Amino acid sequence: MNTMEERKELIRAAAAKMGKLTYGGETQKVDTPRMQLQRQSPKLASLEEAIKGSGLCNGMTISFHHHFRGGDKVINMVVAKLSEMGYRNLHLASSSLIDVHEPLIEHIKNGVITKISTSGLRGELAKAISHGLMEEPVVFRSHGARGSAIASGELHIDVAFIGASSADALGNACGYSRSENAKSICGSLGYALPDAQYADKVVILTDDIVDYPNTPCSISERYVDYVVEVESVGDSSKIASGAIRDTKNPRDILLAEQAAKVIINSGYFNDGFSIQTGSGGASLAAVKFIRESMIERGIKASFALGGITAHMVKMHEEGLIDRLIDVQSFDKVAAESLKDDPKHQEVSSNEYASADEPGSAVHYLDIVILSALEVDTQFNVNVLVGSDGIIRGAIGGHPDTAADSALSIIVCPLLRGRIPCVVDEVTTLITPGSTVDVVVTEYGIAVNPRRPELAVRLAKAGLKVVDIHELAQRAKRVIGDAAPLPFGNKVVGIVMNRDGSVMDVIKNIEE
Amino acid sequence: MNTMEERKELIRAAAAKMGKLTYGGETQKVDTPRMQLQRQSPKLASLEEAIKGSGLCNGMTISFHHHFRGGDKVINMVVAKLSEMGYRNLHLASSSLIDVHEPLIEHIKNGVITKISTSGLRGELAKAISHGLMEEPVVFRSHGARGSAIASGELHIDVAFIGASSADALGNACGYSRSENAKSICGSLGYALPDAQYADKVVILTDDIVDYPNTPCSISERYVDYVVEVESVGDSSKIASGAIRDTKNPRDILLAEQAAKVIINSGYFNDGFSIQTGSGGASLAAVKFIRESMIERGIKASFALGGITAHMVKMHEEGLIDRLIDVQSFDKVAAESLKDDPKHQEVSSNEYASADEPGSAVHYLDIVILSALEVDTQFNVNVLVGSDGIIRGAIGGHPDTAADSALSIIVCPLLRGRIPCVVDEVTTLITPGSTVDVVVTEYGIAVNPRRPELAVRLAKAGLKVVDIHELAQRAKRVIGDAAPLPFGNKVVGIVMNRDGSVMDVIKNIEE
Repeated sequence: MNTMEERKELIRAAAAKMGKLTYGGETQKVDTPRMQLQRQSPKLASLEEAIKGSGLCNGMTISFHHHFRGGDKVINMVVAKLSEMGYRNLHLASSSLIDVHEPLIEHIKNGVITKISTSGLRGELAKAISHGLMEEPVVFRSHGARGSAIASGELHIDVAFIGASSADALGNACGYSRSENAKSICGSLGYALPDAQYADKVVILTDDIVDYPNTPCSISERYVDYVVEVESVGDSSKIASGAIRDTKNPRDILLAEQAAKVIINSGYFNDGFSIQTGSGGASLAAVKFIRESMIERGIKASFALGGITAHMVKMHEEGLIDRLIDVQSFDKVAAESLKDDPKHQEVSSNEYASADEPGSAVHYLDIVILSALEVDTQFNVNVLVGSDGIIRGAIGGHPDTAADSALSIIVCPLLRGRIPCVVDEVTTLITPGSTVDVVVTEYGIAVNPRRPELAVRLAKAGLKVVDIHELAQRAKRVIGDAAPLPFGNKVVGIVMNRDGSVMDVIKNIEE
Repeated sequence: MNTMEERKELIRAAAAKMGKLTYGGETQKVDTPRMQLQRQSPKLASLEEAIKGSGLCNGMTISFHHHFRGGDKVINMVVAKLSEMGYRNLHLASSSLIDVHEPLIEHIKNGVITKISTSGLRGELAKAISHGLMEEPVVFRSHGARGSAIASGELHIDVAFIGASSADALGNACGYSRSENAKSICGSLGYALPDAQYADKVVILTDDIVDYPNTPCSISERYVDYVVEVESVGDSSKIASGAIRDTKNPRDILLAEQAAKVIINSGYFNDGFSIQTGSGGASLAAVKFIRESMIERGIKASFALGGITAHMVKMHEEGLIDRLIDVQSFDKVAAESLKDDPKHQEVSSNEYASADEPGSAVHYLDIVILSALEVDTQFNVNVLVGSDGIIRGAIGGHPDTAADSALSIIVCPLLRGRIPCVVDEVTTLITPGSTVDVVVTEYGIAVNPRRPELAVRLAKAGLKVVDIHELAQRAKRVIGDAAPLPFGNKVVGIVMNRDGSVMDVIKNIEE
């Protein structure tokens, strides 16, 4: 028998045993057409409404990404609005800051921004901070370390402001758009992904609101609180600006050729190898030389990691590099490829380079080519502070990739004009010498004494292997001893290591 | 000045102020080529090693997915191994169970499996359970409810066993393979994604270990503890088996045509509408009629959701459906499309249909076409238990999509042979009548009295709108009153509603 009364009794008993309620019997339906429903999304707001709604208070932390590099319009726009709304004493945590963010100087002077965390600092803003603009020192972290710090809660973000090239009204967002109204493209939003996941509130700013569902997307609606339509989030023609340049400099080309020879003879140039290159001219040029050898020897790479360039995309499309894992699209060709090619995948900064993330791709990186402002005789590298003591660079993924790769190669000239690049001691320690394997200069190749087998291989291949002290001596012979820098007594920057410890401090420069 | 001593002092001071350590100065590098490193991944294990390593104990919960449907080999393989290893008293939580899982009967008899949670149950296993095989009642949940229960911890999974068509040695896994050794394909792994994310331990079983990185992937290595290579995870020729069939039945085609007319005249057939169809023959056939109308009227759909079929893929490729959001690829064409087309995206069961997930696509679904074993005069639907009282179906996304869509249409014949499908009261309540809008039969279309505006629109369009009581009466006139079913007094199944309450119980059938 299955009478209704008996059935109800059994349902009550089953629910009681499970500690559950019984079903009430009524479910409310919404009959509005869904297109209308999503277009009325309560997440749609003006920037001011989104800021108010986010609950942002003085003293809190706001975050940004720098995928638009020199073309970024979001940071200046949002901070100007916060200033206008009367906010003070904010902590600005960006994945990086560059020349275009000069207007922040005024907002620091006015007390809107009193603390900064970033991977890099360039231009007038960097200069002003080096001269002591801020009370609090700027905290510098590598991309991997920033991801770790956000994931662990050490860098807690109250409100993330994320510029996106498209978003639907529910917040599904990415760094490109498939609509006819597309205004911008930056490709990967890798650095913004931890912000989206861990920030208390997430505000997407976009210059193209598209119909739901904006799939595939970088940031899922589940993380998004507000969607703000703006005239422009960034000038895509400038994503290749800043550190990125294709070199015609003969010295860079010579360095690139040497770096390529190091790679080819290192013992790591085998079928299935993986590679990352920095954004410096020589490092980009080295890729071209490697390409030729790959074709010659029939060697293919399993993946290229990190900042992805048109060169990498070309090699991928030629079948020389199987997969691209992209934390930052370094030009429009790379951004378009990310949009269209399933084998070209975005990666978050954590899954790219965090030391704490078990699924971090950098753990499987064979070779990285990196640039440097200075290398010292202990193989320590500085990519952040100029030899004049002024901040003018970015940590980026430098220490992450140096530490986790099988072979890290620093490419830098011995001298830049009157400035020596191989020195007795770096002005600021960014990447520890224990993680740097080879330094390539136009006067020879220095191999870290920790890697004697490498030195043997390179010497056997006929490369000019020299002691790094010789290089430093040679620079000194040309330039003479550098005069001590006019450092003051104020700490303007703190460099965090990727394990969360404090690695170095940067002092102010006096006029 | 910047002397080393002074710098060290400042570093110590900065670290102390931040509550941090100072950097120790040494970082250990690993110099093994990465291809070798990943091939030596400690995650690679035999099934037995993975089970032992997972810490699985008697009484724990193991989980599986059913994306290979009738071709699944993983559940039987793993449970046989667990039995051989002497495990007892396990809770098996699968996204569904079908005919091919008949061997579980022996493992239930032997006490290896003593509890089951699933969305569906078919074949000999279902029959045996309906006859009282198990002590504990089977807990049935919809796909959305299963996702919610896993996310909330109500359904805690100790060890998830996930069959994948490719995985690298670190665990990046998906339902297809891009390698030359590809043996199987199932497409979306949507139902397995909450398992991967929330289970304490995750074991990937695959018949194709590919080189790192297996991007794009469904399941990231960060979630994976073991990777087990097996001869075969599933027979892909059978993913279209089970509930999926392309109908040539004239009655099904008539029903499909009527369903299409309902959609076209419902008020929801507008440019940008969204749609989901179940896996029944009539529901699949309806898509073909809708396609013609879309072309005629120049209407395009924004997305198709849920189980994706070759028909949907075709319409997507024709430009009639902009995006496909795929929780389960219903055939090989769909699975291949998911692999290659960026606009065809996988979705987890939570982000597909959970009632608790803010970013759930089902909230933006206009129209769903569903099938039924029985509908009653209160519009309640049963898709799980046959009119003979024996379990022979699956809840699937039925109640999820009925509740969240703007228009839910049930398509079912009045009679199946001597079995009435429109009845006074469903044998088992799966989808509450308050969420069901229209019932299409070959004898007329019944509209839920809660939706009078719909009834008016359909009648105006010349469709035969009837009272659902008339339909039930008509069935009764043909068949007569059904004899009471020989239910016993044991509860063999509990049906959970998607809000986590208990909706119904299923009693055993006596011989």
